[in-house]
Formats: sequence, C-alpha cells, structure tokens
Amino acid sequence: MNLILLFEKDFINGTHEVRIDDRRLKHMLYVHRVQVGDKLKVGLLNGKMGSGNVIYKSKSELMMKVRLTEDPPPPIPVTLLLALPRPKMLKRILFAISSMGVKKLYLFNSYRVEKSFWQAPILDPGKMEKYLTPGLEQAKDTVLPQVELRKQFKPFFEDEVPEIMKNSLPLIADPGAEDACPYDMNQQVTLAMGPEGGFIPYETDKIIATGFKPVHLGKRILRVENAVVAGLSRLF
Amino acid sequence: MNLILLFEKDFINGTHEVRIDDRRLKHMLYVHRVQVGDKLKVGLLNGKMGSGNVIYKSKSELMMKVRLTEDPPPPIPVTLLLALPRPKMLKRILFAISSMGVKKLYLFNSYRVEKSFWQAPILDPGKMEKYLTPGLEQAKDTVLPQVELRKQFKPFFEDEVPEIMKNSLPLIADPGAEDACPYDMNQQVTLAMGPEGGFIPYETDKIIATGFKPVHLGKRILRVENAVVAGLSRLF
Repeated sequence: MNLILLFEKDFINGTHEVRIDDRRLKHMLYVHRVQVGDKLKVGLLNGKMGSGNVIYKSKSELMMKVRLTEDPPPPIPVTLLLALPRPKMLKRILFAISSMGVKKLYLFNSYRVEKSFWQAPILDPGKMEKYLTPGLEQAKDTVLPQVELRKQFKPFFEDEVPEIMKNSLPLIADPGAEDACPYDMNQQVTLAMGPEGGFIPYETDKIIATGFKPVHLGKRILRVENAVVAGLSRLF
Repeated sequence: MNLILLFEKDFINGTHEVRIDDRRLKHMLYVHRVQVGDKLKVGLLNGKMGSGNVIYKSKSELMMKVRLTEDPPPPIPVTLLLALPRPKMLKRILFAISSMGVKKLYLFNSYRVEKSFWQAPILDPGKMEKYLTPGLEQAKDTVLPQVELRKQFKPFFEDEVPEIMKNSLPLIADPGAEDACPYDMNQQVTLAMGPEGGFIPYETDKIIATGFKPVHLGKRILRVENAVVAGLSRLF
C-alpha cells in the first residue's frame, strides 16, 4: 500500500478530515506503523492525490487531515480485451492491470472459457473493486478501471469491437504469430488476449478479420496472467 | 501443460518407452483427454524435446513411445538477483521465471525481507522444482532453472556479484530511477530487484556502487511478482 485510497464516505461531513477503521487501518498500524504527526500519501477514489496528516490514532480508528492537490498519473493508452480467465487468476489479473494503469477491460466469452467461470461471485456487481483498488494503492493511482462483461463472442467482435478499436492499433497476442509484439508504443492500442489453451482457429480468424494484427510475446507460451503483464510492459 | 516433461525414472529400462502414473497422467486424461494413438509434445528434463506416441492408457497409467530430437529453446540471457519474496509470491515467481526462460536465479537477503521467509519449506532442497517444472511445461522447455540462496546481503554483493555480473549489463530496478529500463536487449543482463517495500538506501547505494545502473519500469510501483515479469518482458 504505497497510497492510502480514500472514499467519499471516509470524510467527516464538510471537513477535510477522514476517519478510517477498516483493513486500511490495520495496514497503517501494523505495516506502516504510523504515529500521530506522520504524513502519508493519500488519494481520493477517482479524484486527486495528496497527503494525509495523522491527527489521531487508536486500535479501532485513525483520523487524518487531508490535502488533495495532485492529479493521478496518466493511464496507459490501452483497451484490454481478455477472454474470461478462471476466477483465481482473474483476481491476480485485476490487481496487475489496475497497478499497471489499464482503465478499460472487457472480459468476453470464448470457446475454451469454462461455462462455470461466468457464475463466479467475483463477477457480481461491485465485487471486482475489491481486487482493483489494491492495485491502485500499490501503484499510487486513484482512477478505478472500468470492467465490462460480454458473454457472447460473435456479437461482441462483430458489433462492438469495431467501435472500441477505432483510432487505435489493434493487436492480438498469438504465440504462433510471425511478428513480435512491438515495444514502447506512443499510441492507443487495443490488445486482445485468449483464454488458457488459446483461441480456437475460428476465433483467431474472426479477430484478425476484424482488423487485429497477430503478435507474439517471445518463443515461449506464457500463462495468461503473465502474458497480460508481459504484453503491457512491452507496449508501454 | 503444453509439453509433458519426462524424467529419467519414467523410462522403462533400456527402451524408448515411458510409463506415467502421477499428476501428469491426470492432466493428460482429463485436460488433454488423450487417446491411444495420440501424439504429444514431450521433453526430457534438462534434455531434448520431441514427441510421445500414446501406446497404452488406463485410469492408473499411460505409456508412450518417445522420440527426442529437438533442442529446447535458448534461455534468455539474464541472471536474476531477487530479494527473497514471501513464500506464496515466490511460488508464482518461480513458475513465471521458469516459463520465461530464466536459467539462473539468486535469492538473497535484504533488510525488508522478513526473517521467517528463510524458514519456508519451499526453500528446502528439491522443493522448488515443484514450481519450476510446471513453468517448463507451460513454455515448452526442458532446462531447469538453477536457484541459489544467499542469506547475507553484504558478502553476496561484495564478494560474489562482481564475478556474476562480469560481461553483462548490470541493472537494478528502482522506481525512483531517472532512466527507463531498456527494451529488447541483445546482450547478457544481470537484473537486481528488491523486496516488497524496496531496498533501504544503504542497499541501493551498495548495489549501485557495485556497478549496477538504476532503471525504472514506468511511473507506477509494481508488486514484485509483476515487476519481475514486466522487467524480463521489456528486456528480451
């Protein structure tokens, strides 16, 4: 937790003071070992960042006087289209993409996505924030990534993706591609990645027909959670 | 499991046939759903790769006739020096670095490494293979990474690292560095990375004094397991 993420509900009505009594308190007490007078890096969810001055602490709550003056870091210019991973892996991916500055993620269905993955509790409204906000706290950012679910492959790629990918370089990660994923891009990218076991040929063909260029991430096939980080790190 | 990793003990004496009856069997039966006559990608630990023809299968064992003709993919030219991470994270890092082609990893002590991490069962001799071999199976490789433990920071960096880093570009990942980590290197790199919370200034100074150049991986501070993948992916 390199930044303490604050929520509107933390603020004591009409003041610049916040009261914290949840998992963040534990972290501040037992990891940061904060004392009254300490200054901490803080940020308001989807808002500005700044510092919080600890004015009171006990075992059950902590109060800070907050000044929010800085903008959060710019997002990385990518829209990520990812075949829905298994829930355990999705949790780690949400943390990773949030910490890396992705702000828009589409999770879509694909032939090799197990049907049960769509029933996972993590997909319930509001549940993903639990895994996205720690990524922001890790990376000193405040802007929550937006995650959209698309349960049908074909209508998603036929009707929606052409609009999503406009004015961007559309790339599909494909271990069999001839060209390597480019490095250090200074432009908007739409990056599509398949499930464990990969896309089936129909899907790869469809995505390429939509305009995506196949690129590989090296000679080795990576697990999805590593491929996501590896791809983003090369591109930006 | 994109490759079935074979061990000398799998071979039926003096033949090219192997018998498999452990977790690999389960994977072949219930994920690959193999049938007699199927040809699978196989590789001998620290040896050649090739194909295995399934000649018998039951619920308790499977036999293949094996031909090993290809060399494994080349390693990536890196030696990784990593402050010992917490055991749960270490497991994922071992998988990741193994799948990415790292062949030499030093795990060393640092001020912010919790003492208890050095007691973790995963550090017992032979235990790490359990997490390294699945990385090889993921990436279609056979060469097991070597992992060395160094429990003392100072003698490691003073006495050993100068020899380890010879003829390589020595880089230390440092979120506060002015220069970005380079992309797409065609040379040997020695990459040093700190623990959660980072190196303390004494350590950073020591490592830089040894000849390492500080580089950052972007504006955001990544969790160690993501930073390792991000760094390797940019460099190679």
